[in-house]
Amino acid sequence: MFPFKTSIQFDRQCNQALYLQLSNQIIQLIKNQTLAPHTKLPGSRTLAEQLNVHRKTIVACYDELLLQGWVESIPKKGTFVHPNLPVLQEQKLEGCKAFDLKKDTGFSFYKNSILPEKPKKNNKSLIYLNDGVSDGRLTPIDEIARTYRRVCSKKNVFDHLSYGSVYGNDTLRDVLVEYLNTTRGLHITKENVLITRGSQMGIWLSSQLLLQKDDIVVVGNTNYGAADATFLNQHAKLERVMVDEHGLSTRAIENLCKRQQIKAVYVTSHHHHPTTVTLCAERRMRLLNLAKQYNFAIIEDDYDYDFNYNHAPILPLASHDTNGNVVYIGSVCKTVAPVFRIGYLIASKEFVDEASKLRGYVDRQGDALLELTFADFIKSGDLDRHIRKVMKIYKQRRDLFCKLLKDQLGDFFEFEIPKGGMAVWTKLNPMYSWDHFSEVARTYNLKIGDWKQYDSANLGHNCIRIGFAAHNEAEIFELINRLKKTIGEIKNSETAR
Amino acid sequence: MFPFKTSIQFDRQCNQALYLQLSNQIIQLIKNQTLAPHTKLPGSRTLAEQLNVHRKTIVACYDELLLQGWVESIPKKGTFVHPNLPVLQEQKLEGCKAFDLKKDTGFSFYKNSILPEKPKKNNKSLIYLNDGVSDGRLTPIDEIARTYRRVCSKKNVFDHLSYGSVYGNDTLRDVLVEYLNTTRGLHITKENVLITRGSQMGIWLSSQLLLQKDDIVVVGNTNYGAADATFLNQHAKLERVMVDEHGLSTRAIENLCKRQQIKAVYVTSHHHHPTTVTLCAERRMRLLNLAKQYNFAIIEDDYDYDFNYNHAPILPLASHDTNGNVVYIGSVCKTVAPVFRIGYLIASKEFVDEASKLRGYVDRQGDALLELTFADFIKSGDLDRHIRKVMKIYKQRRDLFCKLLKDQLGDFFEFEIPKGGMAVWTKLNPMYSWDHFSEVARTYNLKIGDWKQYDSANLGHNCIRIGFAAHNEAEIFELINRLKKTIGEIKNSETAR
Repeated sequence: MFPFKTSIQFDRQCNQALYLQLSNQIIQLIKNQTLAPHTKLPGSRTLAEQLNVHRKTIVACYDELLLQGWVESIPKKGTFVHPNLPVLQEQKLEGCKAFDLKKDTGFSFYKNSILPEKPKKNNKSLIYLNDGVSDGRLTPIDEIARTYRRVCSKKNVFDHLSYGSVYGNDTLRDVLVEYLNTTRGLHITKENVLITRGSQMGIWLSSQLLLQKDDIVVVGNTNYGAADATFLNQHAKLERVMVDEHGLSTRAIENLCKRQQIKAVYVTSHHHHPTTVTLCAERRMRLLNLAKQYNFAIIEDDYDYDFNYNHAPILPLASHDTNGNVVYIGSVCKTVAPVFRIGYLIASKEFVDEASKLRGYVDRQGDALLELTFADFIKSGDLDRHIRKVMKIYKQRRDLFCKLLKDQLGDFFEFEIPKGGMAVWTKLNPMYSWDHFSEVARTYNLKIGDWKQYDSANLGHNCIRIGFAAHNEAEIFELINRLKKTIGEIKNSETAR
Repeated sequence: MFPFKTSIQFDRQCNQALYLQLSNQIIQLIKNQTLAPHTKLPGSRTLAEQLNVHRKTIVACYDELLLQGWVESIPKKGTFVHPNLPVLQEQKLEGCKAFDLKKDTGFSFYKNSILPEKPKKNNKSLIYLNDGVSDGRLTPIDEIARTYRRVCSKKNVFDHLSYGSVYGNDTLRDVLVEYLNTTRGLHITKENVLITRGSQMGIWLSSQLLLQKDDIVVVGNTNYGAADATFLNQHAKLERVMVDEHGLSTRAIENLCKRQQIKAVYVTSHHHHPTTVTLCAERRMRLLNLAKQYNFAIIEDDYDYDFNYNHAPILPLASHDTNGNVVYIGSVCKTVAPVFRIGYLIASKEFVDEASKLRGYVDRQGDALLELTFADFIKSGDLDRHIRKVMKIYKQRRDLFCKLLKDQLGDFFEFEIPKGGMAVWTKLNPMYSWDHFSEVARTYNLKIGDWKQYDSANLGHNCIRIGFAAHNEAEIFELINRLKKTIGEIKNSETAR
């Protein structure tokens, strides 16, 4: 008989039941054919004695093996290892490279060569030049967490725990209708609102509905990289038009329209990403007229609506749209914090219906509890109060950063003070390259990031975005300091040459 | 001069600044060409007198109009409406159908005829026969909300508010490695884990990476409808194989493999959706060997792992996979509540890397705060305690529901008591159709839902899933009662005929 006594080990400290410890070990013995098919297992009384456990443990173990299909019971004969169990084939070593289960895949799949990787951050002593992100330290996290808990302690919370609407929570949709109609001059009802997981999901859903292979989408010759990647991943064709100090050139778009059917224009109307300019009134109206005349969609990504330091926000294209041409996208990710993936896609009912259907198969639905939390946060006026508060701070940071950059590094960097947003579009003196600058900067614990993303059309403008909003006063001084040291070293090595 | 006095109205109760009220009204006048291009605006002093406001208000208003590009200022001449503003073209009425901005779209887009709509629920007096969902009332919502708030009050919370990893929060990934290795016999490290928004996102990401047009994916001839739809939406070809009391037929899969390259097999190993049977040990091992031999992926959707009433959970295929063939998908949506979209996709590093890259362009990232909350919930043992608690309750509900169904309606419904899960696979006596049954049931406030989803292969099995877990004892009695009334009326109308 098989030496069960020496092959089976019980761990009496472990909180797994003995019968399970036993059955799992017997399964291992069956899987590696130590116990071959047809092998008769000892009677429960015999095995119980051998292993010094209660007979009930053995009976429970055999029941378990039977239920799982590892053994079969033949009346009046006993319990036998299942006769037809196949042997598991292990991966053979090929040449000298061992198969690494953690890393290698035993089947082929489609790898994506279009979407770029997202950058990873992990070093605290580094200063990262960011693209223009908010300062997490200003997030009213206490208020939000308190509201979340209040939402969870309401009697009706159980209505929100099960599967919900693919459109998002109804209360938040109602609140957004009022909020967007008031603050942005929209004229929408609830059926025009889909709650998304941030603006990116809005861009992604729009591109799914608007673009198939070889469809044309118009973007600026400088443009938001993640939008470009999203459209390219749909195998759409990007037509790039000039961006000047008034934004996208509507004349260039008109010329394109005369030659071919375009499906969509992507515009960050308020401020152009990355150059931070605002689309002027004339072009806003021309773009709307072109969309009507040539039947294309305007994907208006209004990520920066809330941040205007020199004047009131300009009403979005969507507020002037009387022909159903605009898909309007926004989120609280910039105004509150990126971790709260609460955004919206505003469009005609039929577009919203289609987009919602699709999202139902991607992540099924949003987080109703967080959506209710933000419904409260917006309706109570807390969002507006928060925006007013951080606006003041960001304006001070913009002014300080721009002053220092101008005063101390004006010979090396050229820029306009941005009227809004969280970043300065900064041109490095053409004598230098960001490539080299970035290399030297690393020695001063300054990480420039992916500067190439800002020039996907290869214009050679030598500009990148430098975010100022996430840094407090001391950090701005330190950032300028590291920029100066970098420039210093670059100049020194020039002189030495 | 234009009659500003009678054209402009101020609302002094409104908290919008006067200069903005004024500029917005002037913009309207410019947009509809009441103020034509080239029109000279009155001097600030004159207009201030006319409108009875401070001169500074007019200056601020003109600055705003200038900044937005609606007017231009010519030195020594004054302020003029911008000469080149186009007129906005309004949609013309076509025939007698008015253009409805709320509903209609001014461009063409791709409508999806593959994905079915998600059902909507809105009537509280109705009992919905569900597919097998958990009872939200048993969700430990207090503990979770308390943990969420604790996470938010930690000092390091600010590290988690900005853009985070596309793989999901690192702490939760670590916790899941330990949890899944312990409870499910996996052998994974962190790089094998992508945190998803529930199982559906795992299925969706897998289908994106594995399937392109005409690729073959094998599913049961009864199968989870949302998985079918997700694969079909990739334009993949579904090959359906028989499902019997031991699950998917591996013999049928082998026969398919001999004829053509298959890309993937989708399996809900633990319990087959919808029929609730468990894939037996022999077939588990055969399926793994086939995957190795024929280089296909096994998408193992283990949604029901935690719910076994008659025996310990069977270790998933992924725990026996030594060749990197299994993509293992699970979530807390069934065990805790669907609103918490926390799931995982477990696979080789290269597969996880690709899937994460793609998800970065869909919703950018998960909710780090909720992920930290669940890291705590799992690590503290609260999840396991919760599962043990609800398991007992669900087992009682299963027993009660099955007993009542058998005793009181045994002539009309045929079923096996499910060994696990939250639903009974229920066959209606072939003399009756669910179509008719459903119609009659509505008169008793009982909604059967989309029964056709369970027979996409048109087998005519006349079965549907009836979820029992979400109903308490009283509700189960009421549900049985309504089923009885429905049957009663169907029989009566037969007799009358």
